Formats: sequence, structure tokens, C-alpha cells
Amino acid sequence: MNKEELKDLILTARGQKKADIVIKNINIVDVLSGNIFKGDIAISGKHIAGCGSYDGEKIIDGLGKYAIPGLIDSHIHIESSYICPEELSKMIVPHGTTTIITDPHEITNVKGLEGYKYMTRAAKRCALDIINNIPSCVPATPFENSGANLDAKELEKIIDDENALGLAELMNYVGVINADDNVLDKILLAKKYNKIIDGHSPGLLGKDLNAYASVGILSDHEVTNIDELKEKIRAGIYIALREGSACHNLTNLIKYITPEMSRRCVLCSDDRQTFEIIEKGHIDGLMKICVNSGMDPICAIRMATLNVKECWDIKDKGVIAPGYLADIVIMDNLKDFNCLMTIKSGNIVAEKGMYLLDVEREDISPVRGSIVLTDFNINKLKMNLKSNRLNIISVIPGEIVTRKEVVDVELKDGDFVFNKDKDLAKICVIERHHNTGNVACAILKGFGIKSGAIALSIAHDSHNIITVGVSNEEIYAAVIALKEQEGGIVLVNEGKVIASLPMPIAGLMSDKDGYYVSYKLSEIHQKAHNVLGVSSDVDPITTLSFMALPVIPEIKITDKGLFDVNSFCFIKNEYKS
Amino acid sequence: MNKEELKDLILTARGQKKADIVIKNINIVDVLSGNIFKGDIAISGKHIAGCGSYDGEKIIDGLGKYAIPGLIDSHIHIESSYICPEELSKMIVPHGTTTIITDPHEITNVKGLEGYKYMTRAAKRCALDIINNIPSCVPATPFENSGANLDAKELEKIIDDENALGLAELMNYVGVINADDNVLDKILLAKKYNKIIDGHSPGLLGKDLNAYASVGILSDHEVTNIDELKEKIRAGIYIALREGSACHNLTNLIKYITPEMSRRCVLCSDDRQTFEIIEKGHIDGLMKICVNSGMDPICAIRMATLNVKECWDIKDKGVIAPGYLADIVIMDNLKDFNCLMTIKSGNIVAEKGMYLLDVEREDISPVRGSIVLTDFNINKLKMNLKSNRLNIISVIPGEIVTRKEVVDVELKDGDFVFNKDKDLAKICVIERHHNTGNVACAILKGFGIKSGAIALSIAHDSHNIITVGVSNEEIYAAVIALKEQEGGIVLVNEGKVIASLPMPIAGLMSDKDGYYVSYKLSEIHQKAHNVLGVSSDVDPITTLSFMALPVIPEIKITDKGLFDVNSFCFIKNEYKS
Repeated sequence: MNKEELKDLILTARGQKKADIVIKNINIVDVLSGNIFKGDIAISGKHIAGCGSYDGEKIIDGLGKYAIPGLIDSHIHIESSYICPEELSKMIVPHGTTTIITDPHEITNVKGLEGYKYMTRAAKRCALDIINNIPSCVPATPFENSGANLDAKELEKIIDDENALGLAELMNYVGVINADDNVLDKILLAKKYNKIIDGHSPGLLGKDLNAYASVGILSDHEVTNIDELKEKIRAGIYIALREGSACHNLTNLIKYITPEMSRRCVLCSDDRQTFEIIEKGHIDGLMKICVNSGMDPICAIRMATLNVKECWDIKDKGVIAPGYLADIVIMDNLKDFNCLMTIKSGNIVAEKGMYLLDVEREDISPVRGSIVLTDFNINKLKMNLKSNRLNIISVIPGEIVTRKEVVDVELKDGDFVFNKDKDLAKICVIERHHNTGNVACAILKGFGIKSGAIALSIAHDSHNIITVGVSNEEIYAAVIALKEQEGGIVLVNEGKVIASLPMPIAGLMSDKDGYYVSYKLSEIHQKAHNVLGVSSDVDPITTLSFMALPVIPEIKITDKGLFDVNSFCFIKNEYKS
Repeated sequence: MNKEELKDLILTARGQKKADIVIKNINIVDVLSGNIFKGDIAISGKHIAGCGSYDGEKIIDGLGKYAIPGLIDSHIHIESSYICPEELSKMIVPHGTTTIITDPHEITNVKGLEGYKYMTRAAKRCALDIINNIPSCVPATPFENSGANLDAKELEKIIDDENALGLAELMNYVGVINADDNVLDKILLAKKYNKIIDGHSPGLLGKDLNAYASVGILSDHEVTNIDELKEKIRAGIYIALREGSACHNLTNLIKYITPEMSRRCVLCSDDRQTFEIIEKGHIDGLMKICVNSGMDPICAIRMATLNVKECWDIKDKGVIAPGYLADIVIMDNLKDFNCLMTIKSGNIVAEKGMYLLDVEREDISPVRGSIVLTDFNINKLKMNLKSNRLNIISVIPGEIVTRKEVVDVELKDGDFVFNKDKDLAKICVIERHHNTGNVACAILKGFGIKSGAIALSIAHDSHNIITVGVSNEEIYAAVIALKEQEGGIVLVNEGKVIASLPMPIAGLMSDKDGYYVSYKLSEIHQKAHNVLGVSSDVDPITTLSFMALPVIPEIKITDKGLFDVNSFCFIKNEYKS
């Protein structure tokens, strides 16, 4: 704020200058006092000048509805929506979200600091305030090739970015509690720059939780039950109640949350697909879940505003009061939270579901061309098995954890033969960042595929190519098509692409809008089930995209081979008794 | 924290290394969840490793009592206790205070940045954590000569001090709401360095309050009634409930504070004299007031711990949880709050009322010799009045505001003649910083002095010499004695010092301990009333020390002359109809 803006703000607040905008005929939800009161809201430039009786250059009729502070998502990965920041802004700002706190670790795993920087540049083209924290786990593990390796020294180049509040979700909690040197370096880096550290520690309890919390973990969005929630609050950790596309922790936990507990809770979506935003909204939808379960609306609103401000020490957001950013949402009521208008930093940016900002996209060329596959041919998909008794990955419908099983398969020239009756298909991970030529193959059970192949360049968290199919030829066709369309999702049947969603942005995000992506994904899901035969209880994309994440039990596959998560080491496909 | 300390902390938390200290047999007050639970508290180095079941090198038996987080005073001027930081630490740490947030503006008004720096050096010799904020109002007004003039440019030299959280109480609220350039420069400086701004706006309401709050005022300790409190909370300002030696706002307001409101309230003492600390304690005493008025003890404790942490964003204090500083107080119970032990950063620093740290004082020589009086003689005390009808300052017992009156006095050679019957005495302010030779004289009514003189080098906020007496000779004797003893307080009768308290530290603080100061002050009060005849309902020191503060109505005197606060300008002694 410069001196002129500050002077204008003061004079407007004092009533000596007309406000730029005044919202009249409105009920103001005061999250500080817990009250709702009537009054005008005067805005000067980007800021709220005051509540009271004011005159303005522009008058907004609040229609007797409710003004609440702009909503804040405490933790989200933009990449998980498969759309770019500008398009996510377009989708969620009309739902009343004015700020998101992100971890751009998917793109950073692919494109390193260049990916991070693209996200910060793109953020500036959004009505939404995007707070990009610094990805702490690139790569997630040493058991895979990702596009980048950001140690503490690399992170120091971006840690003091004006926008970043700190280190994003420190998923390597095992490294923390084992006092791993590389992890401690990152923690000490955050402390050195007085930055916060966001957490991620599913199920961690007792002394292990104390050890994790002791490094200064601010928040955790992985809490799944009330005992874990209580223990984590006591350990000083804020709970980010998550309602994502895959995880419905808020729905499960909300009935246990007392007003006392809620002070240490915030709301987040983590991963939210476009169709979910279209159907259920964003943070507005989460607050609706809270109120439907009997929570006081102001308590619910606080979890998306005041509490987030306190948790992350965001000085100028989360409250409707003088000097705060004019991030204000007009809601039809405090039960459905239908958003009628979104004002961001004093500008009306959405009205009745319409995003009013012209979307001018950031140049994506620095993050294109991420599928590097020179050293790849169909022979690489052939397995040379010494035995037909194999360790395999067995899908559990609706879960991203898997079961390790041993099965006997049919071989031909040492290669695995697809078996529809036993529901056994070949799964491959193909390294796509450094042209290592790495291709790992294994057997996937329970996916249901009966024809063709699916290939993705979304494979958490290193995002190599992951593919499943009924033959080497189908898989090869899918991978080649995927390369040609610069990543994304490809479904192939009989050698031909039957559905696809290109993702030129690092192989992770479409360059189209949310409605297009939602439509294409729907088509992809339908064809995966109806044409390729993927089981109806398996999500063909999400399930496959998590088969390469070697921190989720019991057995996964990376570009370096089959990985036994329980024993935390690679194993051969061939079973050894 | 270095890596070895961090490793030790993690291993201790995990139970893989013996804790340095374990507190056993204790009830842990968890301000986060609002619960009290049993468990050991393990400490590693300066930090809490965890609560649970732990082994330690040293075991403290908690005797089944209560562990609460170290108490934080949200706003205090050390100088007002007339003792140095090391001695204040000695007095209040045994009461459970482990952190104070200070505004060292008294000494900075006298000694400028050198005074500020002395306070930060002395702070390092205390068990107490002293957070010295940057004085925002040096001098308080342009109507007086203080020892220093700190504009935004000067403040920039210290604003990024590692210890300072921001700009200390911005008393010049008139300057703020009038958008005064010099004040705005200071506000913009704080914003530039991402520092907070503490407030001070007695009675400010409505649009003026909005204007003041709009610049980003964090907190206010001047609130005197519940309507003001509610309005300020709504304006986004934290309320620091004050219980000082002069102001008892907490006592008056506590009955109105709901748990909902309390989230936006903290506790502070502002000014606390030594006898008050001896008799009523410090923040422990304030919490006792809260509980006695019916507040839930955890709510009261939060106002001195968690809420302060949230208000000022102090990352590592205010909570007993892993990774927080081991600032822990063992209280006998949660009603009287008798402090049995104070642990600061993992060290036992007080036990059963005893301060266990060796007090090694910071060198005071840089802040000595503050009474500069070369150009002063008895003739300067003579008034050359053209009329015997004068504007005078009339004391209101128990208040620091005064009444402007007009009286007829007796003159001799143009000088005022003391009048016992009308209770009229001469009051003078003598500039002591820059040897300007400024001496201003006026008439004080209602002080009650019947004999001798009193001289102080404590005269808010510029701290020139202020003196009242029955004759020029008595006043002169007092001022000379004051100079010889390097400031403080002097009582003279018949030309001889009958009581005194030297204050070699900037003329504001004694170099003795709190008990000595308390004893001497008691003697001074007694002699002022019994020998000099000061009215029993007037505090001879505090009242006099506020007669030079030109922001408190109605009429005051600075070294530049008699000042009419209502019309905000100097006036002559001689009344003009």
C-alpha cells in the first residue's frame, strides 16, 4: 500500500471521502465477535474502510443477504483438478473462494523450479489469491525417478519468495521421526527463514506424533478419525478437515467437532476434480456439509476464514473489518451458501456464478514437452520372467492402498500373458523425465480391464507414464499416443485412441477449461468401463495414477521396479518362497 | 535451533533418548483443546519434546499440581516500575511470567536509540523473554523537548531488529485519523517490514475508530467500557485488558467478557509499580481477578498464553505441546494461581518465589548522566507576570486529567507568591536533555503541598524535570539535589533532602532492586503527605509525573510553556478575557 492509498483508506473510513464501493442492505457476518449485524461495508481501493453508514461512488445492493469474508482453502493441489491455475480460479471464485493455499508439488516433481515458477506466474493472472508454498518432497521417495530433486539447497532459492508462507506438506514423516539428515535440512531451512511447515502424517499417534510435531508442524489434512484429531490438536497441530474427490474426512468427522475444537480446525479440499466443483462447489460446499451436520454457521465460516488467518498468520484476510483486504462474499443464506457475488481486493470478480475477469493465460511453453521418451520401443514392454509364480499388485476397489498377492500366471517366451478370467493385466511404469530408458513391468489384479489399454502421465508423485493393458501392442499404442498428445490420459482399443484428454502443461494439466475437462473425463470414465471393461467399482484414472506411489501400502510399481511398501524395498516379480 | 538440538528433540519425543527434564505427577492444562490431562512433560534442551510417558535425566515432581504455559504480558513499560529489566525479571518470573511485550518509549524519549539498545542488551540478561517493540511516539508531541526525535527514517534503523514484533503503541491516534504524513510514514514502514502495529486509542469509536483501525492496528490496551470493547473487537482490534497501578480496566470489564469475546482478549499490566507486584503479583494476579469474577480458569489462562500467541503470532510460545519452548509454570491451583515453579526455555528459573538466576547487570554507563542542566539558576524560576489573574492547572484527585481554572493570585515583584489557604503552588518544567535552558512555570492548584518541594525526572513522556514547591528556594534546592543524584525523585524541606530515590538509568530507573525501590517509594509517599502536606487523596509522584503530558486534557505544562489541551495550543499564564 502506498501513502496515497493509505490516506484514501483513512479518509474513507472517517467518512470524509466517498468510498469506491459501498455494500448496503446487508447482514455482516462478524467472525470476530460471532455476531451478525446490519450496516454498510465501505471499500477503498483494495481494502475495507469500515462498517457503518457510508456513501460510495458505486452502491451494491446486498438484497438483505449475508456478507462473509472471502473463503480460504487451506490446502489444495491445483494440478489434481487437471486444469491450470487460471481455469481453477474461474471455477471456484464464483463459489466464494478468494484464497487458496497450495502445494504445487505435482508440477515441481515434473519440471522442478521451472514448474514452481510457472505456477507463481500463472497465479498472478487469477482473481483468486494463490499462495504457493514450497514443495517439501520432490521427489517423494528415492525409489523413483522424478523430473527434479529439490534438496534444502535448491529450496533455499525459493523459500523466501514473497508469496510463500512456508514448506508445503512434509509427507516424509518417516524421515522426520527418524531424524533423516536431508529432511532436517529442509526443516532448519524453514526455521531459518521464519517460515511455517505444513504437515501430512496419516494415522501418526503417540510418541511418533510427538516426534513429528516437535519440529514445528503447523497443520495436517490427513486426519481420518476423531481420536487422531484430538491427539493432533493436543500436539499443537491444526486440523485441516478435508473433503476432496477421493477423501471425505470432513463428512466423517464433522459430527464430532465441538465449537471448542473447531477453533483449531480449518477446511481444505486437497484434491478436487472439476465435476465435483461443478456439482458440489468448493469451500462453500464444505461449509454446507458442516451446517447440515448441525454446526453453527458462524463456526463453519470461521473454519474457512478467521481460523485459517490465525493458523497461517495471514494478516489481511479472513475478517470483514477496517484495513482488511476487501475479500467479501455475498451469500444467499447461511445454510446452502449459494454465492451471489464475490469481491476480491475490492473488485467484483464473480456474480451469480459468472467469473467476470478476462482469463489471459500465462505462457505454458516453459512447462510443455515434458514427455521425454527417445529410448523407448515395444520390446521394452516384454517381461523376461524366470518363473510363472509372481508377486502381483491387487487392487482394492475404492482405495489407493493395494494388497500384495502371489499368483501363477501363463507365460509365452518368458513374457506374461493377459488373463481375463483371473483379471490379471500388465502394468508398466515408463520413465519420462530424463530419458533413462527405464521401463518397469508387473502384474495388476482386479482392475477389470478386458480390452485395449490406458496410459497416463499422471502417476503420483513422480508422474512417470503409467499404463495398463491387455497386450504389449495395446500398451505401446497408448504410450505412443500419450507422447504425441503431450501427456494426459489416453484410452486405446484395438490400437486406436477411443478417448483422450491431452495435458500439455507438464503432462498434468489440460490447457482447456474446467467444463471441457469434466466432460472429457466423463467420456473417458464411460469408455473405460463400457468399452475396455474396467470394473465398475474401480476409478480407471485415479486408481491407476496412485499405483506408482511407493509410500502407500502394500505394493506399488515405480520406474525402477516392483516395490514392497511394507518391507520398504524393491522385490522381483518372481515370487521366492 | 541447530541440527543436533533438533535431532535430540525428535529422539527425545520418540522416547529413544532420555529427556533432559521430565515433569511427572502433574495435571497439564491444554489451552488448545481446553482440557486438563495427566501425563509427563518431557523437555529436550530449550523445547518441549512431548507429553506422555517419558524418562528423564532429571525428574521434577509436579506434586499433583497444574502445569500451564508461561504467562505473557501483552503490553508493559518496564520503566514505569522504576527498576531495570534485570530487576523486573527477578520480580515477575517467580510469578510465572516468562515473556513480556514492551514499549521502551520512556527511556527512548530520554536517550533515543541508545536507550532502546540498552534495553535490548539488558533484556538478554534476564530469565524473562523481553520483546521490545519499536517506540512509535518519540516524542509524544511536538509541544515539548524530549531527548530524541525518532521519525520513520530513524525507526528504520531498528525496525527489523530480530526481537521486535513491530511498532509499539501508536498513541498519536489523532495523527493517524488526520492522515498526518509523519505518522503515515511510520505505519508504512511497519507494513514494509511486515511488522505489526500496536494501538492506543482511549474512547475512540465510530468512524474515527474505523479510520484508526484501517491502518492495521493489532491491539488496544486503553479500553474502559464494554461498548467500546465490543466495537473495537468488531473493528478487528484485540483488546489487551489492563490492570496496572493506575488503571483497573480488567477489574471493571471482566464481568462482561464472554468466552466468545475472550478469544479476542489478552492481558496486560501496562504500568505496574513494585509494591503492586509484591502485593498482588503480575499476570498471575490478573488471572486471579478473572477467575474470582467467575471466568473459567482455562479461559483466563488462554488470555495470557494462547490468545497472545495468536494475537502477536509468536510461533513458539503460549502452549504446552511438542516443539514449543519449554516455558512452563507449575501453579498450586487454578484459582489463586500461586506459582510454585517457573521453567523458562527448559531451565528452572524460579522456585517458591525465589529467582534462581544470578543477576548480572548490563553496564548502565551509556544511559547515565541524563540530567543536562548547565544553563540553570534560581532566577529562572522567577515568573514575570503582567497580571495577577492567571490560567492555572487544577488537580483532580485520583486522575491524570486536570481542570483548567482561572484564579487571582498574590504577586511580589511580578512573581507568584505561594498560597497555602487557596492551595496554590508553583509548578515548573525544566528541560533536561539538550541544555536549551528552557524553564516553564505555572500555578498548580489542589496538590496540597504546604512546605518544601518535590522534584522528579519522570515526567511523561519527554521526561524533563518537573517540580512543585512552596518557594523558588525550595524548588531550586530540590532540582539541584535531583541533578546531583542523577535524577529520580527528591523531596526537600527547608532546603534539605528529606527523602529521595536516585534513578541513574536515564533518570527513569533505579539501579537498585524492586524491594528497595518499593521501600523508598513508601517512605517518599509518607513524607510527602506527612511532612510536606501533600493531600492524602493525591499521589505525590504519579500525579506530578503526568502534569507534563500534553495529550491528556485539560491543561498541562511542558518545558515550552503552559498548554491548553482542549484548544491544542500554548497559552499564557496571564488570563485574557
